[in-house]
Amino acid sequence: MSVLIVGSTALDSIKTQKAENPRLLGGSASYASVAASFFSPVQMVGVVGKDFPRRYIRLYESHGIDLAGLQIVPGKTFHWSGEYEADMNHRRTLLTELGVFETFNPVLPPTHRKTPFVLLANIAPSLQSHVLDQVQRPKFVVADSMDLWLNIALSDLLKLVKRVDGFVLNDSEARQLTAESNLLEALRKIHRLGPKYVVIKQGSHGSILSGPKGLFVCPAYPLKKLVDPTGAGDTFVGAMMGCLAAAPGSIDRNLRQAMVYGSVIASFCCEGFGLTRLARLTRAEIEGRVKELRRLTAF
Amino acid sequence: MSVLIVGSTALDSIKTQKAENPRLLGGSASYASVAASFFSPVQMVGVVGKDFPRRYIRLYESHGIDLAGLQIVPGKTFHWSGEYEADMNHRRTLLTELGVFETFNPVLPPTHRKTPFVLLANIAPSLQSHVLDQVQRPKFVVADSMDLWLNIALSDLLKLVKRVDGFVLNDSEARQLTAESNLLEALRKIHRLGPKYVVIKQGSHGSILSGPKGLFVCPAYPLKKLVDPTGAGDTFVGAMMGCLAAAPGSIDRNLRQAMVYGSVIASFCCEGFGLTRLARLTRAEIEGRVKELRRLTAF
Repeated sequence: MSVLIVGSTALDSIKTQKAENPRLLGGSASYASVAASFFSPVQMVGVVGKDFPRRYIRLYESHGIDLAGLQIVPGKTFHWSGEYEADMNHRRTLLTELGVFETFNPVLPPTHRKTPFVLLANIAPSLQSHVLDQVQRPKFVVADSMDLWLNIALSDLLKLVKRVDGFVLNDSEARQLTAESNLLEALRKIHRLGPKYVVIKQGSHGSILSGPKGLFVCPAYPLKKLVDPTGAGDTFVGAMMGCLAAAPGSIDRNLRQAMVYGSVIASFCCEGFGLTRLARLTRAEIEGRVKELRRLTAF
Repeated sequence: MSVLIVGSTALDSIKTQKAENPRLLGGSASYASVAASFFSPVQMVGVVGKDFPRRYIRLYESHGIDLAGLQIVPGKTFHWSGEYEADMNHRRTLLTELGVFETFNPVLPPTHRKTPFVLLANIAPSLQSHVLDQVQRPKFVVADSMDLWLNIALSDLLKLVKRVDGFVLNDSEARQLTAESNLLEALRKIHRLGPKYVVIKQGSHGSILSGPKGLFVCPAYPLKKLVDPTGAGDTFVGAMMGCLAAAPGSIDRNLRQAMVYGSVIASFCCEGFGLTRLARLTRAEIEGRVKELRRLTAF
């Protein structure tokens, strides 16, 4: 089955202590769509300006991503620039130029309205809700978010969260949203906001799922070299949704495996700047690392 | 087989945001010995003053701990007092009264010199080395440490580390010792200091082993309620050594399982102040939680 992915499509200029890369392909929808494309057909919805490099369109296309929902409009593509500290858990934004993203109105082409799996990748929760208004009886809807929306659009976020099957956020966001330092307590409180499934991402420490079948503690692949963590969370949830869409059987049965694939794809993502590592990733490498993760965690 | 455990034996006064408990049984040797005692016979070596409560001697005895190596001398027992912040990853020391611990000279009774498993729980590395001088051809020696010794006794620590089979430390200590933010790089550098096995503890995120058979990513049990994390690391390594001493076969074969038991015992430790939870822990509860951890992490 297919996955519909809505989110941001951007150009990212990323600086680390070791290198600087201007105008990489970025944005939550880009990361999530490329990640999902390893497992199932993807329909991406986003907006870019006329300045959007042709090579990035070709990159989407080489991953078989359906671009019927990608609006290309006059103006400049959303441009984000950030710098990572030596401890890459910390970064600061140097520049945010919204460009055409400022007036983004995600409109689903008719062909995208009945897609069974819907990933509302990280964008303003009001836009995520607007997408939900347009879909018809999806099988499984997941929303991702970020601290920004907790800070400036909390009531929109709470409205959205009521309407989704799964909600994904990171550990500090979970603590902020619930005012709970204990993750299990935080999970319990987030379920009360609506979602049947909650996934808390913990960066290099993996992730934790809470759902009707209880908890799953999902490991992270230990990285030899962290080059650029940008988009790791987006690729995690993108790959997870791609796997779910590809797997026969119930969500409950497939979700653990899907998260492990998400974890593995996110680990590859961190090995290169932007999407450069995923752009040359093979299915054999993915399967190899899933097996390796199984060996690393078996007891 | 038996485990010889050398470390501190103390009285801990612990304050959290919710409660205050004076003069609990504490110290690295107390925590590690009680933890190990669930799996194998333990010989504990330490020192306490004449003020040491009789009930704590009975607690050791009720766990079958051999106290031939526990010196009871005139003076006051080591007393530590600390306070945890709301985020229990942070604590501050309110008071340290070394008492009889200041002149502690660990002397092994003749019966303790051929014990096959030796755990040098957290004390000054010079004392840990002094214990190693007294043992005869142990099968497996592990040392635990803390940031204090990295700061004030680094050269002693480096001398010790050359002589042990396994070295256990937490993630921030590993980063400090190696000036490496990447854990795999840090592990590689610590192996170069001598130990064949290195375990990095990551608190609520589990632990990671590096040894001749490669890596093992060991999960932590997700805690419903964190009451007091004091001694969690000591109980982890104590239980690990107890399991290794109890299991037939090679260290390489048994180490993963032993770490999982360590993780589970540490999780119980955090559910009560000091050793209060472990004091009433049953083997059935331990086995139940190991099974649960297996279920929580299976994919």
